[in-house]
Amino acid sequence: MKRLIVDMDGVLADVSAQFIAYDERDTSRRKTVAEITGLPELEMVPRANEYLRMPGFFRNAPLITGSREVLEQLNRRYELFVVSAAIEYPKSLGEKVEWLGEHFPFIGWQRIVLCGSKHIVRGDIMIDDHFKNLDFFEGRTVLFTQPHNHGQDSRRHERVNSWSEVAALLL
Amino acid sequence: MKRLIVDMDGVLADVSAQFIAYDERDTSRRKTVAEITGLPELEMVPRANEYLRMPGFFRNAPLITGSREVLEQLNRRYELFVVSAAIEYPKSLGEKVEWLGEHFPFIGWQRIVLCGSKHIVRGDIMIDDHFKNLDFFEGRTVLFTQPHNHGQDSRRHERVNSWSEVAALLL
Repeated sequence: MKRLIVDMDGVLADVSAQFIAYDERDTSRRKTVAEITGLPELEMVPRANEYLRMPGFFRNAPLITGSREVLEQLNRRYELFVVSAAIEYPKSLGEKVEWLGEHFPFIGWQRIVLCGSKHIVRGDIMIDDHFKNLDFFEGRTVLFTQPHNHGQDSRRHERVNSWSEVAALLL
Repeated sequence: MKRLIVDMDGVLADVSAQFIAYDERDTSRRKTVAEITGLPELEMVPRANEYLRMPGFFRNAPLITGSREVLEQLNRRYELFVVSAAIEYPKSLGEKVEWLGEHFPFIGWQRIVLCGSKHIVRGDIMIDDHFKNLDFFEGRTVLFTQPHNHGQDSRRHERVNSWSEVAALLL
């Protein structure tokens, strides 16, 4: 059984949508996706770096469409691990495990990894929205489209724009 | 530079001492190390499994003698990662990162991994007190003596009884 490593933020959890929601609460104006497209994550909204450290930011993040249904099927076909680079935000750690328990109850605690750098994990396939994670992975690499990686050359990585495209690729 | 993976509980943090201290608080009698030697960790004291879930249990765990000094030296010679199987105890996650920050400030957040199973990490050398982690590791394996692994056959693993023995082996 092949080992599939799936990222959390920007692949399962819609962190960009959460940035837009928090920014709207502060500014009373809702940014459009077009406005944030192409910007680095931490520059999408002025207070992004603060929002990431606020209690509840990760706990209440919305799901990316289709992720639950497709991941449940992938979980039967692959040795699935969810790997999130989260240690930089210690307050997020418990929230992330709770969030996964709520939305992805079929993923046991044995299959969750919270790390600083993803260089240390090994597997056969990685789905991630960041080049910094995919570029160092030894196996097959799948880039999940997010506003921050829009238009970037995907080089050796296969790009997918949605969870239905993940399903078409891996199921 | 070789990658060295160091466990946290029972290698850096003295969890057995913490069990004994919590049990003493409950029973007004202090168990000796001889009494817990050879017992599985969760059977050392009657309420072990509850203690692990209590706020503060990991945050206030004592250091294992010599760990800070030797690890600081190892950190200059190896690509050091601290890897702890902690996801089962979500409340411990933030505490563990804080505890490392206090006692091992030279270990950046990039070099911390909190996981369920350690099968997913790769490296050259692993120091751990549990066979379940060492047995599946592909590299060199070092078993750190703890009361719970006392007298067990160390098979392919090199056994060390203290951090000065780790220094002798790896520095």
